[in-house]
Amino acid sequence: MSGGGPGGLQPTAEQPRVEVYDTTLRDGSQQVGLDLTVADKLRVAAALDALGVDVVEGGWPGSNPKDAEFFARASELEWKNARLAAFGATRLPRRGVDDDANLAALLAAGTPIVTLVGKAWTLHVDEALRTTRDENLAMVADSVAYMAAAGRRVVFDAEHFFDGYRADRGYALAVLDAAVEAGADTLALCDTNGGTLPDDAARVVAQVASSRAVRVGVHFHNDSGCAVANSVMAVSGGALHVQGAANGYGERCGNADLFAIIAGLELKRGHELLPPGRLAQLASTARTIAEFANLPLAPRQPYVGSSAFTTKAGLHASAIARRPDAYAHIDPGAVGNQQRVLVSELAGRSNVLAKAEELGLELSPELAAEVLDQVKDAEHRGYAYEAADASFELLVRKMAGALPEWFSLDSYRVMIERSAAEDRSEAIVRLRLGGERVVAVGEGVGPVHALDQALRRALAGFYPALSGIHLVDYKVRILDGRAATSAVTRVMLTSADSVGEWTTVGVSDDIVTASWEALAEGVGYGLLRAGAEPPPASPAPDTPCHLETIGENA
Amino acid sequence: MSGGGPGGLQPTAEQPRVEVYDTTLRDGSQQVGLDLTVADKLRVAAALDALGVDVVEGGWPGSNPKDAEFFARASELEWKNARLAAFGATRLPRRGVDDDANLAALLAAGTPIVTLVGKAWTLHVDEALRTTRDENLAMVADSVAYMAAAGRRVVFDAEHFFDGYRADRGYALAVLDAAVEAGADTLALCDTNGGTLPDDAARVVAQVASSRAVRVGVHFHNDSGCAVANSVMAVSGGALHVQGAANGYGERCGNADLFAIIAGLELKRGHELLPPGRLAQLASTARTIAEFANLPLAPRQPYVGSSAFTTKAGLHASAIARRPDAYAHIDPGAVGNQQRVLVSELAGRSNVLAKAEELGLELSPELAAEVLDQVKDAEHRGYAYEAADASFELLVRKMAGALPEWFSLDSYRVMIERSAAEDRSEAIVRLRLGGERVVAVGEGVGPVHALDQALRRALAGFYPALSGIHLVDYKVRILDGRAATSAVTRVMLTSADSVGEWTTVGVSDDIVTASWEALAEGVGYGLLRAGAEPPPASPAPDTPCHLETIGENA
Repeated sequence: MSGGGPGGLQPTAEQPRVEVYDTTLRDGSQQVGLDLTVADKLRVAAALDALGVDVVEGGWPGSNPKDAEFFARASELEWKNARLAAFGATRLPRRGVDDDANLAALLAAGTPIVTLVGKAWTLHVDEALRTTRDENLAMVADSVAYMAAAGRRVVFDAEHFFDGYRADRGYALAVLDAAVEAGADTLALCDTNGGTLPDDAARVVAQVASSRAVRVGVHFHNDSGCAVANSVMAVSGGALHVQGAANGYGERCGNADLFAIIAGLELKRGHELLPPGRLAQLASTARTIAEFANLPLAPRQPYVGSSAFTTKAGLHASAIARRPDAYAHIDPGAVGNQQRVLVSELAGRSNVLAKAEELGLELSPELAAEVLDQVKDAEHRGYAYEAADASFELLVRKMAGALPEWFSLDSYRVMIERSAAEDRSEAIVRLRLGGERVVAVGEGVGPVHALDQALRRALAGFYPALSGIHLVDYKVRILDGRAATSAVTRVMLTSADSVGEWTTVGVSDDIVTASWEALAEGVGYGLLRAGAEPPPASPAPDTPCHLETIGENA
Repeated sequence: MSGGGPGGLQPTAEQPRVEVYDTTLRDGSQQVGLDLTVADKLRVAAALDALGVDVVEGGWPGSNPKDAEFFARASELEWKNARLAAFGATRLPRRGVDDDANLAALLAAGTPIVTLVGKAWTLHVDEALRTTRDENLAMVADSVAYMAAAGRRVVFDAEHFFDGYRADRGYALAVLDAAVEAGADTLALCDTNGGTLPDDAARVVAQVASSRAVRVGVHFHNDSGCAVANSVMAVSGGALHVQGAANGYGERCGNADLFAIIAGLELKRGHELLPPGRLAQLASTARTIAEFANLPLAPRQPYVGSSAFTTKAGLHASAIARRPDAYAHIDPGAVGNQQRVLVSELAGRSNVLAKAEELGLELSPELAAEVLDQVKDAEHRGYAYEAADASFELLVRKMAGALPEWFSLDSYRVMIERSAAEDRSEAIVRLRLGGERVVAVGEGVGPVHALDQALRRALAGFYPALSGIHLVDYKVRILDGRAATSAVTRVMLTSADSVGEWTTVGVSDDIVTASWEALAEGVGYGLLRAGAEPPPASPAPDTPCHLETIGENA
């Protein structure tokens, strides 16, 4: 239902071409905690190129050696869709363009596009630049003309344009006109402080675009929570170039999220921004770039987040199965995402059946009812299956008799010691694997880490697949904090193999027991995925015991 | 510069009053991973009331026992600003209102406001409700009239209104008119699937509002990344009631972030939504509710996030100091947040001095700088003093030499055993109290409870005041979940005596050590409050050791 769905208007074939300009590697990288190496930047650029954006702004070559290196190496890559832009400031006040190191570095980057930023707000000309307003106009004109003469396509970034337009409209427009007359090809109106609201965005862009022959674009920040909306509204107002960053990265509240802009304009306004078929790569591109950035992708991120099409409202499940378009603003597949129905205590039997079917298990209505009872009972005690898909699957498989017993616990003991002399956690686990008994000890940072180490050591000899399974996330929630340290504790544990991730849950009034449950299920589910062979089922009570020591598999 | 700042328009005194309707406890709670107990819900409601929202929607009393319990307990609270709303559906098809269990539960909730949701999209009437369109109109009219006759103020939530308006405008408006004629006081136009873009939002609201005499409101979801913008635009279009959730909580991509809407309308459109002076509590309210929800507050959340006014662009620092209004869309103080320049320490030291003065301690500027260094270092390692007031005070007192040493730890040992035969946690702590040594053992539910029991037993003979101090809340947060079970763990522990509560923090890569820190500080701060006499300072290494056994003080 892309475009024509309930949330969209019919696409009109007549929409003008809007240029997509990505600034993840320059402005997006200003985000606190986002720190890309040159190799990371090249990978992000390649992912954006594969998605099909028009322009990748690679950095500010005059500002740091890392960006200069990026441009040197980027020119060796094979670009399929995108052209590279280098970013820099206009020349210094009362200096020439020929001896400006920043402009020289911009030229040296060798990009087809040069983006020059200049001041458009009198406050900044007077107080930050501390030069005359005429000199600022000359700086813009000289710098643009210099780059145009060198054969570059020039995008002029009018910094603080919306604030400048509000403060002194005539001067803000004079800055734009100086850039146009000097040969700028595109004007990007920047909402540098992010304070603009959508109606102002649309109105100002329409006023600028209607009276100028060049391409007018926009660059929004999300300080008012309106960056995506402002961008979409600006395009309605006549903008033909839109800047943003992958996943909305950027300093303060971030840049406009380029992915939400692309999806909104393509699916709801009939624009064609990416090459045909590429929109379905949006979610995987978002995840890939988040991996390169080493930042978790927000589950609720519009269009591409893991929860973006997930509902836990039980009453909707059967209805969703019947008419998915009635409950989602777009077809999730259009952006490469998927609809997920979660199981929770509010859910009905149809949710359980739908989920089981998703897992490839056929349940009788009676068994589904039993599973639902179990789920409700467990959730009442604090389990949360909606986020612990693997534990839910293990529960269903177990009740359906379709789960091998990889191992069972005889006992464990954990010791924690703290003194001036030492600080130590140690765990001993005793397991049964079919007919075999195994004892192993693990040391760790804290009791849960020690248990994890001991469990892995106990199983390593039997299940080589375990070496490819590791823990990636661990969450603890005290369910009724008011019962203080004896309250019920829920542990959510995420494990991963080379193919994907899964989450398991454990609940107990003791955090160690809750963690053990989640650990044991996480390993069990991993072995299921790996297709590991379960141990021989017949128990032989007197078999000798395997002892796995700390040194052995470390 | 609130309102008149560079990002805002001058406030106009003539803006009509817009009602703020919070749905955190109902629609917001549909968020995956958000699971509030009844006690949590009451605390969230109190925080929203203190902020000054007009309406707090407490839940759906007909859907689950938890919400029914909430309403029973909420009526005992003293509400200062907010009125309570209970949410529910219109009557069932082809049934009367008198034998409708859902409507009965709504009445039983005893709230002044009842919010009734009904279908406004023909697709849902035909396919989900599976009744006739006339019957749907009758369901709306009957249910609204029933609640109005019972003396309730009725808000009518028109589900899927924007989709319905697009699909069959006449029918969508007929649904609204049925509600109005039956006595609904407010129409909330819901963008249930979240697909609407801002220009459509403004246009549709203006068309509805201009031709109806009742209050028209809106309820947006963020699936297109436009929920805040849509809400602001809807108000420009004539909406006088706006629904949203704290921090944008909600299923899929979330509900409209109520806090960003409030800040935008107050600071940039001159509306007065909260009682005078309350906007400056916005950031602390957002953090408090995030704590109750046990969800981290997104650093980049507009207006209230910790990074919302933080720049890492070094070149701006001195300029920001000179003209803060040139680099921020609003005055951060207007929403109770602060500008942070990552390289500057100036703002912090004055905070430390102010806090010390609050505690009745005079610090030299040098000592304040040292405290600030300690705080920064500790926060870098994961401590969070903002929510742990007691730990901050202990730190300042310790550095000022104004803290008695109630006890010091020699060592502890914790043992956890689990087997078919038994399930046991046991702790032994060895303390030094001035010249005395004491050893005590405690048993508990899990290691932390056992440690708490042992600590209390060790101190009970020396500090009788301890019997009046108890733990009331315990929270665990894994700070870098990606390091899994060896990640840094932060424990926040709240203790109470007969007069009040205080919170302490502990951080370690081991949950037991982190808990011990918070436990020991919680007890120490309680003894300070109780004015307990510290032990004689002179250590006497050969004094006999007091042994406190499990039986003795149990």
